[in-house]
Amino acid sequence: MSSAKDQASRRFMEKQAGSLNPEELIRGIQQGERQALARALTLVESENAEHRALAREVIEACLQQANGKTQNSTLRIGITGVPGVGKSSFIERLGLILIGRGYRVAVQAVDPSSEISGGSILGDKTRMEKLSAHAQAFIRPSPARGTLGGVADRTREHILLFEAAGYDLTLIETVGVGQSETAVHGMVDCLLLLLLPGAGDELQGIKRGIVEMADILAVNKSDGDNQQRARNTQRDYQQALHLFPPASEDWTVPVLRCSAITGEGMEELCQTLLNYRDQMQANGSFARRRQSQSAEWLHEAIRDALSEDFYNDPEIARLLAAEETEVQNGSVHPLRAAERLIERFRKKQNADTAL
Amino acid sequence: MSSAKDQASRRFMEKQAGSLNPEELIRGIQQGERQALARALTLVESENAEHRALAREVIEACLQQANGKTQNSTLRIGITGVPGVGKSSFIERLGLILIGRGYRVAVQAVDPSSEISGGSILGDKTRMEKLSAHAQAFIRPSPARGTLGGVADRTREHILLFEAAGYDLTLIETVGVGQSETAVHGMVDCLLLLLLPGAGDELQGIKRGIVEMADILAVNKSDGDNQQRARNTQRDYQQALHLFPPASEDWTVPVLRCSAITGEGMEELCQTLLNYRDQMQANGSFARRRQSQSAEWLHEAIRDALSEDFYNDPEIARLLAAEETEVQNGSVHPLRAAERLIERFRKKQNADTAL
Repeated sequence: MSSAKDQASRRFMEKQAGSLNPEELIRGIQQGERQALARALTLVESENAEHRALAREVIEACLQQANGKTQNSTLRIGITGVPGVGKSSFIERLGLILIGRGYRVAVQAVDPSSEISGGSILGDKTRMEKLSAHAQAFIRPSPARGTLGGVADRTREHILLFEAAGYDLTLIETVGVGQSETAVHGMVDCLLLLLLPGAGDELQGIKRGIVEMADILAVNKSDGDNQQRARNTQRDYQQALHLFPPASEDWTVPVLRCSAITGEGMEELCQTLLNYRDQMQANGSFARRRQSQSAEWLHEAIRDALSEDFYNDPEIARLLAAEETEVQNGSVHPLRAAERLIERFRKKQNADTAL
Repeated sequence: MSSAKDQASRRFMEKQAGSLNPEELIRGIQQGERQALARALTLVESENAEHRALAREVIEACLQQANGKTQNSTLRIGITGVPGVGKSSFIERLGLILIGRGYRVAVQAVDPSSEISGGSILGDKTRMEKLSAHAQAFIRPSPARGTLGGVADRTREHILLFEAAGYDLTLIETVGVGQSETAVHGMVDCLLLLLLPGAGDELQGIKRGIVEMADILAVNKSDGDNQQRARNTQRDYQQALHLFPPASEDWTVPVLRCSAITGEGMEELCQTLLNYRDQMQANGSFARRRQSQSAEWLHEAIRDALSEDFYNDPEIARLLAAEETEVQNGSVHPLRAAERLIERFRKKQNADTAL
């Protein structure tokens, strides 16, 4: 739930972003100034026309910088799992290990208020406390908004900004219950699914298809009394995965066990991630995946640009909401509703041009 | 591969369709004339502007008819599985059983030439021979074209035409190797995945996420020496499915065994399909799924309409192909390429309007 307080703080940040000049912002990002990066991330999320123009300038500068680098020097990891699986503690622990190995780590975290409560009050309070405080880490809470398709695009731009600011490793946290899941799979190099020790009952409500899309599975909370159950879960998934399409000819999806609390298995997990990257880079899969993601992004950006005027028109938005209701009721067919909306939109466009 | 012969025959059919008047075509469809239906299906696939206008009239008439009916009187089933799993024989046997129970059955089949050869020459020759000859069945070979996103849309319109022609049960065959798979899941009431007796090795190459999306699994070719292996496969999948997100709170995905050749298990399978429909209709899931599919269709139709002029412009198409290559090479960023293309397109549009 996005509270009034959230909105007020967003407006405040947007105002701040607007008062900056783009050159200053770009220089700040490139020099690794945290505040400049934070402002740019907010700017990119803004729907205000002035901010969007400013955001384009910033993104453009980051693009020029990104094109100068070899693509393979960065790694983007999606981390998903149901609420309560321990994603925050996991990311904190993994992030610190990665920093220990010399990486600079950016995290796009899920806003805890947007998750179905996992019942862990303590968990929210201590969310990535050590990692947030680290000079080599940058944590960005993800906005809890529900813009149509918007979140995906912004996350891609956020990755671009993180990388421009010198973060070579980005962790994208998601809860796996909605559309965003497949979208995130389309923008990371590796998707890691966290599981709970048990019989998979936790997956109730998670988006179907996610388990098959994961490149690495890890049974978290493998500590104390849970260890035997975690071993059973690990074995069960290892067996089950044989019955599903393989991730790639070049990679057998491993099922690991770990505990973000005790740290057991976390070094091994980190090593598996880096081995994955090395192996996929060596056989060319890494570059191929990024290539196809780029082509997908191109087409998405084109479609978004072409439909921007349509979806941003307040009259069309009202009509669309009404048609949507009728379509869902079954009283109007989708094709006919689309036709009517497009017709109205074209008429408005022609009238605008004629002025 | 689409041969020159295929193209010539398509042109011939398109010509025929073009020479028809729409009222005649609509009347023919509604009276269940097979040739009228076949022509309408071809018409809908055509990219010729004149045909498209004609197709809209026909679709519009079918829509009016569809809105008069209760949505629940029809059932749309997706049938998927790797080449060689026996989809054609399966569909033939299932179709005949359904006809025996009083249904009229339409099939959108996969063009066998578009499948990776399953090595079954006999299979191609006898493709649904008995079902094709049946008065209560209509089989439409799917075009083997690769239009961007086009196949999905045409399949939806095909379903509409089938239902307007009085076919209350539509079977959509797919091979499950590409994009079309997820698209088909978004337009059917039930997705049925066929498996081979064995250890799941056949799923190499199938699109990831498909197994989890299936509403019913069936191990085909459970006959002769295969029976024990089929039983093992059935048991393995039954166990494995517990570790994956459930299809819905209201439905436990069953794993059946059958043989399209001997007919064993086919009556039970048919009954499971009908039970699925009854249960999902009773608990409201059926209607909800169609509602969300309709909303999805509305937005897709809007996006398609808005990007039609862009993708149909020959100059833009040339530029797009060039930008795509650069984007995949990593020499241009997707956002920048999209920006350039959109800019060029807008300039052309403004020039056209100014004329």
